[in-house]
Amino acid sequence: MENFSSKLLQSAVDEFSKLPGIGKKTALRLVLHLLKQQEQDVETFAGAMTDLRNNILYCSKCHNISDSEVCHICSSANRDKTTVCVVEDLRDIIAIENTGQYRGVYHVLGGVISPMNGIGPDDLHLDALIQRVTTDNIEEIILALSTTMEGDTTNFYIYRKLQDHKVKLSTIARGIAIGDELEYADEITLGRSIINRTPYQVSTSSTKK
Amino acid sequence: MENFSSKLLQSAVDEFSKLPGIGKKTALRLVLHLLKQQEQDVETFAGAMTDLRNNILYCSKCHNISDSEVCHICSSANRDKTTVCVVEDLRDIIAIENTGQYRGVYHVLGGVISPMNGIGPDDLHLDALIQRVTTDNIEEIILALSTTMEGDTTNFYIYRKLQDHKVKLSTIARGIAIGDELEYADEITLGRSIINRTPYQVSTSSTKK
Repeated sequence: MENFSSKLLQSAVDEFSKLPGIGKKTALRLVLHLLKQQEQDVETFAGAMTDLRNNILYCSKCHNISDSEVCHICSSANRDKTTVCVVEDLRDIIAIENTGQYRGVYHVLGGVISPMNGIGPDDLHLDALIQRVTTDNIEEIILALSTTMEGDTTNFYIYRKLQDHKVKLSTIARGIAIGDELEYADEITLGRSIINRTPYQVSTSSTKK
Repeated sequence: MENFSSKLLQSAVDEFSKLPGIGKKTALRLVLHLLKQQEQDVETFAGAMTDLRNNILYCSKCHNISDSEVCHICSSANRDKTTVCVVEDLRDIIAIENTGQYRGVYHVLGGVISPMNGIGPDDLHLDALIQRVTTDNIEEIILALSTTMEGDTTNFYIYRKLQDHKVKLSTIARGIAIGDELEYADEITLGRSIINRTPYQVSTSSTKK
């Protein structure tokens, strides 16, 4: 795959294959696709990437990607500012927003503590979270990090830092997905969903599938 | 997935998801990766794409992507200029070159005749191929197009255009891949590999797996 007839082509393919999950063959396919587009379209593609990187802002409150100094969630009058959901990155916010079930605000850590990858507390927006609890009138922190060792470590770090503050700490419920059969659930999830069982409620709204 | 907090992010994701095989979720993952890179690295990425599109040359002989007016294969003294292998695009050349078995030159059509997609003979480098046969001293044309109806149509078009020329036309052999079991071969391939059987040769070089 290294025997390209053109250095320009070679460097375009090399650049594409630096992206996660993009191998040399996929990179070549994408580059050949771009080659078939109008010059203007390729300029637009390239410009969107550099514009984003050079002009992106992060919300000064929650550190979410934003076009303004405070993001549209943090500046919304309809959101409950006393509840903060702690997430790893933007994709988690999109997922939670898509449920339509959350009216609080967020705090984006930018990852989780991972000594193996050289990511310590100082590389994340952890101090800013503690600061928000200290200065803002926050009543509840919902931890929504991944259930990995790194996520658990980060949860524990936040717990230790906040244990002297009067703030309620909770984690999102983990259990069997709605519609899933118990037979196929993994044992850890099933075990935890029994321990964390919730009182039976007669459904008043339409049942979700 | 449409509820992005940033127009810059939205347009970067939109641009990425125009690429073939890249959905919105993958696009977001790639864009978030780029966001974590240095500004200079993103400039390099974007620059490689626009450089390629704006400065790319096509070999005046074989129409392969090239950095010079005649590509390194067509200008090589070691290649047999009397044999021309007709392919759809650059990826086929890479695949054939990787075998190390071909010493002739190529002709890139840029696709195959496909009325369904509005691709006629004039959209491909077919006239240029006929021209090469007329002016250059070409003895054999090897057709290496895909075995689809479009590929067959294109093969037939070339055959019709060249039937009055003294040039040998051949196609690459199709059959059971070396190492494959007959049991799992499709019937058309197996049938054709019986019809196009070749004389038994005692292998003198090392056997390929």
